[in-house]
Amino acid sequence: MTGMSEEAKHKCGVFGVWNDPDSAHLAYTALYAQQHRGQESAGIAVSDGKLLQAHVGMGLVPEVFSTRVLDRLSDSKAAIGHNRYSTTGSSVSDNAQPLLREYIGGQVAVGHNGNLINALVLRELYERRGHIFRTTTDTEVIIHLLASHHLSHTDPLVETLQHLQGAYSLVFLFNDRLEVVRDPWGWRPLVLGTTPNGAYCAASETVALDAIGAKFVREVEPGEIVTISDKGISSRRFAEPQQPAHCIFEHVYFANPSSKVFGETVQIVREKLGEKLAEESHVEADVVIPMPDSGRSAALGYARQSGIQFREGIVPNRYVGRTFIKPTQDQRNTAVQLKLNVVREVIDGNRIIVVDDSVVRGTTTRAKMEQLRRAGAKEIHLRISCPPIRNPCYFGIDFQDPAQLIATSRTVEQIADFLGVDSLHYLTLDGMLSCVKHPKDHYCASCFNGEYRLNVDNPVNKLDLERYQLKMFK
Amino acid sequence: MTGMSEEAKHKCGVFGVWNDPDSAHLAYTALYAQQHRGQESAGIAVSDGKLLQAHVGMGLVPEVFSTRVLDRLSDSKAAIGHNRYSTTGSSVSDNAQPLLREYIGGQVAVGHNGNLINALVLRELYERRGHIFRTTTDTEVIIHLLASHHLSHTDPLVETLQHLQGAYSLVFLFNDRLEVVRDPWGWRPLVLGTTPNGAYCAASETVALDAIGAKFVREVEPGEIVTISDKGISSRRFAEPQQPAHCIFEHVYFANPSSKVFGETVQIVREKLGEKLAEESHVEADVVIPMPDSGRSAALGYARQSGIQFREGIVPNRYVGRTFIKPTQDQRNTAVQLKLNVVREVIDGNRIIVVDDSVVRGTTTRAKMEQLRRAGAKEIHLRISCPPIRNPCYFGIDFQDPAQLIATSRTVEQIADFLGVDSLHYLTLDGMLSCVKHPKDHYCASCFNGEYRLNVDNPVNKLDLERYQLKMFK
Amino acid sequence: MTGMSEEAKHKCGVFGVWNDPDSAHLAYTALYAQQHRGQESAGIAVSDGKLLQAHVGMGLVPEVFSTRVLDRLSDSKAAIGHNRYSTTGSSVSDNAQPLLREYIGGQVAVGHNGNLINALVLRELYERRGHIFRTTTDTEVIIHLLASHHLSHTDPLVETLQHLQGAYSLVFLFNDRLEVVRDPWGWRPLVLGTTPNGAYCAASETVALDAIGAKFVREVEPGEIVTISDKGISSRRFAEPQQPAHCIFEHVYFANPSSKVFGETVQIVREKLGEKLAEESHVEADVVIPMPDSGRSAALGYARQSGIQFREGIVPNRYVGRTFIKPTQDQRNTAVQLKLNVVREVIDGNRIIVVDDSVVRGTTTRAKMEQLRRAGAKEIHLRISCPPIRNPCYFGIDFQDPAQLIATSRTVEQIADFLGVDSLHYLTLDGMLSCVKHPKDHYCASCFNGEYRLNVDNPVNKLDLERYQLKMFK
Amino acid sequence: MTGMSEEAKHKCGVFGVWNDPDSAHLAYTALYAQQHRGQESAGIAVSDGKLLQAHVGMGLVPEVFSTRVLDRLSDSKAAIGHNRYSTTGSSVSDNAQPLLREYIGGQVAVGHNGNLINALVLRELYERRGHIFRTTTDTEVIIHLLASHHLSHTDPLVETLQHLQGAYSLVFLFNDRLEVVRDPWGWRPLVLGTTPNGAYCAASETVALDAIGAKFVREVEPGEIVTISDKGISSRRFAEPQQPAHCIFEHVYFANPSSKVFGETVQIVREKLGEKLAEESHVEADVVIPMPDSGRSAALGYARQSGIQFREGIVPNRYVGRTFIKPTQDQRNTAVQLKLNVVREVIDGNRIIVVDDSVVRGTTTRAKMEQLRRAGAKEIHLRISCPPIRNPCYFGIDFQDPAQLIATSRTVEQIADFLGVDSLHYLTLDGMLSCVKHPKDHYCASCFNGEYRLNVDNPVNKLDLERYQLKMFK
Repeated sequence: MTGMSEEAKHKCGVFGVWNDPDSAHLAYTALYAQQHRGQESAGIAVSDGKLLQAHVGMGLVPEVFSTRVLDRLSDSKAAIGHNRYSTTGSSVSDNAQPLLREYIGGQVAVGHNGNLINALVLRELYERRGHIFRTTTDTEVIIHLLASHHLSHTDPLVETLQHLQGAYSLVFLFNDRLEVVRDPWGWRPLVLGTTPNGAYCAASETVALDAIGAKFVREVEPGEIVTISDKGISSRRFAEPQQPAHCIFEHVYFANPSSKVFGETVQIVREKLGEKLAEESHVEADVVIPMPDSGRSAALGYARQSGIQFREGIVPNRYVGRTFIKPTQDQRNTAVQLKLNVVREVIDGNRIIVVDDSVVRGTTTRAKMEQLRRAGAKEIHLRISCPPIRNPCYFGIDFQDPAQLIATSRTVEQIADFLGVDSLHYLTLDGMLSCVKHPKDHYCASCFNGEYRLNVDNPVNKLDLERYQLKMFK
Repeated sequence: MTGMSEEAKHKCGVFGVWNDPDSAHLAYTALYAQQHRGQESAGIAVSDGKLLQAHVGMGLVPEVFSTRVLDRLSDSKAAIGHNRYSTTGSSVSDNAQPLLREYIGGQVAVGHNGNLINALVLRELYERRGHIFRTTTDTEVIIHLLASHHLSHTDPLVETLQHLQGAYSLVFLFNDRLEVVRDPWGWRPLVLGTTPNGAYCAASETVALDAIGAKFVREVEPGEIVTISDKGISSRRFAEPQQPAHCIFEHVYFANPSSKVFGETVQIVREKLGEKLAEESHVEADVVIPMPDSGRSAALGYARQSGIQFREGIVPNRYVGRTFIKPTQDQRNTAVQLKLNVVREVIDGNRIIVVDDSVVRGTTTRAKMEQLRRAGAKEIHLRISCPPIRNPCYFGIDFQDPAQLIATSRTVEQIADFLGVDSLHYLTLDGMLSCVKHPKDHYCASCFNGEYRLNVDNPVNKLDLERYQLKMFK
Repeated sequence: MTGMSEEAKHKCGVFGVWNDPDSAHLAYTALYAQQHRGQESAGIAVSDGKLLQAHVGMGLVPEVFSTRVLDRLSDSKAAIGHNRYSTTGSSVSDNAQPLLREYIGGQVAVGHNGNLINALVLRELYERRGHIFRTTTDTEVIIHLLASHHLSHTDPLVETLQHLQGAYSLVFLFNDRLEVVRDPWGWRPLVLGTTPNGAYCAASETVALDAIGAKFVREVEPGEIVTISDKGISSRRFAEPQQPAHCIFEHVYFANPSSKVFGETVQIVREKLGEKLAEESHVEADVVIPMPDSGRSAALGYARQSGIQFREGIVPNRYVGRTFIKPTQDQRNTAVQLKLNVVREVIDGNRIIVVDDSVVRGTTTRAKMEQLRRAGAKEIHLRISCPPIRNPCYFGIDFQDPAQLIATSRTVEQIADFLGVDSLHYLTLDGMLSCVKHPKDHYCASCFNGEYRLNVDNPVNKLDLERYQLKMFK
Repeated sequence: MTGMSEEAKHKCGVFGVWNDPDSAHLAYTALYAQQHRGQESAGIAVSDGKLLQAHVGMGLVPEVFSTRVLDRLSDSKAAIGHNRYSTTGSSVSDNAQPLLREYIGGQVAVGHNGNLINALVLRELYERRGHIFRTTTDTEVIIHLLASHHLSHTDPLVETLQHLQGAYSLVFLFNDRLEVVRDPWGWRPLVLGTTPNGAYCAASETVALDAIGAKFVREVEPGEIVTISDKGISSRRFAEPQQPAHCIFEHVYFANPSSKVFGETVQIVREKLGEKLAEESHVEADVVIPMPDSGRSAALGYARQSGIQFREGIVPNRYVGRTFIKPTQDQRNTAVQLKLNVVREVIDGNRIIVVDDSVVRGTTTRAKMEQLRRAGAKEIHLRISCPPIRNPCYFGIDFQDPAQLIATSRTVEQIADFLGVDSLHYLTLDGMLSCVKHPKDHYCASCFNGEYRLNVDNPVNKLDLERYQLKMFK
């Protein structure tokens, strides 16, 4: 068996709608609204009640969907959509979702946000039984499970889901229904709404509901399957809900500020993170500035709490993107200078507090700090609205190679030295978790603290497989 | 189960090479040489000895392969390539080959020329066992067979092939070997050669060998598997050869004139068809002209045999292709006039014999005949170098909708009337088969005479399936 | 004579550099930095000291310049660049700049920011003398003047400029020098800098200098020509400086916040506009929110002055651009909702002050106000950081059709009604002009007050032409 | 003054039509029909009776014109079209025609086939008078002449043409008329026809008339202007016809075989060239084969005259084009082998006569001869249907760099040695000219014999210019 590569891990966005004449366009709009959840690929699958068809492609939504393509999908009554995140260098179009397949039950299309930790063992089992695979995604395994259980079980979907370990918010489109699923731990967000035409829909984030003018109804419950068809909406459980493991990183960094995630609006949480950060790391200074746009909410909270004036000291250039042709060696910092322009009057002669939500590789941040210094900053105090990220995520966030994460091998002091700042403070774990409303142990903070809710050691060994096989194909 | 659509039938070209440092470029060149065997899609899969990767796409070879793509494939030691034929309106990129899949045996890529008549029944069986399908091609079924038999059989490929009914010339690329297969009836051509670097290769037609500077070695035998790996070349049989069913249409119409097919050079056969046509249908005339370029070889034979002067009376415009923007209603014949320009001096005042290799829908031919008439032709005698096509092909040639074939519902006289010619003669079946060297019953002429070597009635019914299942998964 | 169409008016950005080995890439980077000054087209002309070549195209910088194109331009020592603004529906690639032409003096390339009010009369004169025109830009007229005066005048450029009436910041690239020109009224900004390699450069805005790591040297003076060549930099005057007519709209709306324009940093001026707005239009409220990103600086100033809390209540979707496929009729507001998402917690139950820098057509603003109302806003008070725009600009800003500007035919009360807000206040003219450092009559505010510094009545009539001709070709 | 580069010389195709509702599509179809006259660029200009618009672009017709573009041009009553030939490496989109310009007389679009030998001197004169140039084409000079003479002459077009020296077939489109012009020597072909809708049209070759279903009316006379407008068709002379200088190369090589050029059908002339070649260079052989497709007509003539059997021994691959990605160094001949496949049975053991219309650089021909030799040719006798090309053309044919033409520096024996053939014969000058109907001195054969009808020494020197200027602007 050849392995499923790292790109199997992904943070993504899903959407689904049933029985709306604008289904394809709603999915398209939702893809835009959730574009921040994945820029590697985008796709839509539609059903006209009889046949499914799909269009997927690499790149941003406008690169994947032309008017002609969207028109072709528009004669439909239901749709699902998927945004996929780009990992470094290994993006493959075959992995783009929704995956559309045929099996004994007919056609099915699936979109997945999350990551299965037992995908490899399941795949191994199926390959041993003669199944073949087209992609390296864990999502394809789910369809094999579904197909295998189709004839032998009364509710093949429930049976399928009971074999999955990990994080998953799923949308399944069949010719006659939409099935919406959230894992028993509630790792990733998933919400229900109703469109202006009165149709039920589901999305990863409420911002997608807002974008299409839909009303928020409720979250999909952990361990719940919601079925939407011409007969209406119905719900069943496939598992008892577990102690929740909501991904705190959705609040800190990932989700849209205007979304309501795990019951709280992201921007409000971020403002609180900034307030807490001010409490924990007070310093005398003249001005608080955000790193745009990522640090703005926390910076406002910081300023509010500390009483230090909030100003915009860095202006982003919105036109600079991945197509910028890199300058020569001697001009290394050009791209950073071009992307972020300093407002000298705000910086010159002042003690500056800069607030951001993360430091990833450090080189870009260091270039920014140098720019501030050249613009006359007397002191620079960098404040980060979460703890250092020092552990891999197995549940759907694809961090860069840990070797490249600045915090994995450095102390905070060493990072401060590297960045050339006068002081550096990361928000504490307790501080961070005190800003959200659920109990602290209802969140997964494993990327910060290394505590995993499920056993993430790779269980692929012969013994396990045989026992598992026994259980699975009994 | 949703059906495999008509596009499952195809005429195509395959190529494979093992252990040549130029493998990717050889495959690319072979795709060009065999482009006439399929213009819908093209693809190459390569192996570096460990991993396989593939690039496939819709369109002609230059549309599918850029320098960048070809460079990416070039660090490899082996390759297979595939040209796929375009059927009307139903081309889908998922069906482009080679198909690359993973199974318990590792990665495999497959290219297929031909058509399986029991693909539907096999697919149904696999879907019942929980397998899922991505494409509507019969080729995907072959990989399911291979995967299913991997653990339970000593030679899974032999086992796999024994389940296939129909025409198939196949190339399989594994990480460590190339397997080249021809069905027991020898329906489609398949030849072996050696590249200038001394590597073994295989191709549908010898023209591909010529194009890459390879030497012809021999045909792959019906019922033979040829394995090419770092250990060299070896051969085994998976079936006793049957009474051959070489597709006569390859000679009449489909293959490249310079190719040697079933032991004979196509152009020489076509000249003989023209000679025979002259014998069968002599008429007094002033000049023999070919319909360029399809009728040229037969026209030369016709002229030689009849003693009537051969001239070029129609000049093709090589720039007019599928991107020509159709004119308005009132200018219907513009495209035909643009594509074929008449040389008036050759036509004016003369009795003309026009030789072509087929009449498909009739409307284009009629427009051409009108042009000749307007150019002053006194008489027009149309001669076709094969019998009328009146039956579907189940073995790899995808004729247009039979309802649109002019000969299915008309007598030769009616066709002559429709086309507006003074006389029309199709070569007889016996005449045609007398021009090739093997015994007449060693060819499949089913599209002309409706006699099929295998039972082509669709065997998909419950009873059959159960008996088949019993036999297959015993 | 066929007319020069409306697209002759434009707001644009220019750049020039001489004697830097990275000239082409510097120009490319400057185009990105000044992209906000024009998104219709972009172009670069380069000189290797002997020959000039240019590449121009429609669209954003990354759409116009590929690595291959930029490489082709890179073997050069000097470059000019130009961003052109998109007007509705009439963009033509022939009008893209820099314009590259040949005349008796050799090759010349020109980039122009501004608008000539006597371009039509000059063109008419030249057409009467047998000259031919390729574009509808006023810029082409300048080259005709230059060519006409080449043999008869010792300083043809000075002679040329003395015939121009209107706003113009110009860069001329010759094979042996760069000439940088600003009109005698200083309508548009134009600054000089030095690159990291020590070469002199010029740009419309200082943000372009920052982006390429260049140091700001000084503004080009009104009425000055700066010549940069291998001999260094020199300056001469072609006209006495006039009473300045700096475009106040650059500060209010057009320039980059981090740029220093007419001696003041734009963002600081905008904060002052917000403060002044708060003074002029105080109202009891719970929160001040900006319309992102255009109203942010002024909103911060407003909040600071009023003491009312500043919060971000609207989150922009940065992915929605001109390629968004419009929804159906019934979903009219989707694009607005998608583009700007409301943070309900900030809005719900609150009295909101919304600050923006303009109201153009009104329909989009109205949709945004509806969104805020739906999100629970108790009161909405809209504050605009400049007076209503009620007059056309003849000096380089291309407003939309006046008939579509909401303020041209409505009172402020009527606009408030249309937008559905509880109160609406535009900053007063005096208030606005009190926020900048030069005397009030050193600014052009004609779009607000209709007072034009030059006679803008179209002087194209026979009498004028004859007198003009007499003077020009004496 | 910077020079007009070599690309000013071109062989091209022109077309024009007035008062046909399908004008744009007729021009588009004519561009296809005349594509062989130029593959560098293509363009169409149309008039709706008031305004002109144009679309031009680099590449083949289908690359330049999409349905959208053609639709945009379709609301018109008149059109001109232009095909431009590709010279090595120096193609520039600005040089694509028709050129569309504005002058005191309004808009004009011009398409030009031929070459002016006094373009440089005229351009110099205009640059001295302050005119500016956009392109390096001689065609632009013509518009400057037209504009200069507009006010001062009663018939500015006649005045303009009287200043032109060289070869020119021209189409001028104004808003109210089409003017069609042929130089006094009749260097290039130009014919009149009537479309199926009864409108008058003009084209370089009759094949364009055939393609659009138009009837041939007559040739445009040397020295004639034909005006087509809503008032009908009229004719005037601008010069006495001179002793004709019809380009013999049109017959030998350049024009479409089905076209009637200078009163004779090209293919018939080519057959005669082949017959003459057989007379001049008889050799014992077994078979005559054409180099496809260029040598086919002459080879048929050769076979007919010599009594030696004609066969097709080389099969071209029609899919190999300029996008073929070149193989590695070791595979140099791959492209040739791929492009031309040998039919071994025709060649093996035989003495072969190969007929072609030219040998350009020799390397490709040598590779072909090697292929024939490898296929078993016992003797190879190469026959070329024109004399060796040893002189540049100044009248509209753009040969490659003379240094690269194999015949410029080699004797026929040396060429035969280089190509590796057993014998080589070029048709004699007298032999060639005996195959066409007009007197021998009515043709320009300067590329073969170096005798130029006009003085082609470059007259650009100060003295000449002053005398010329005196005469021109008196």
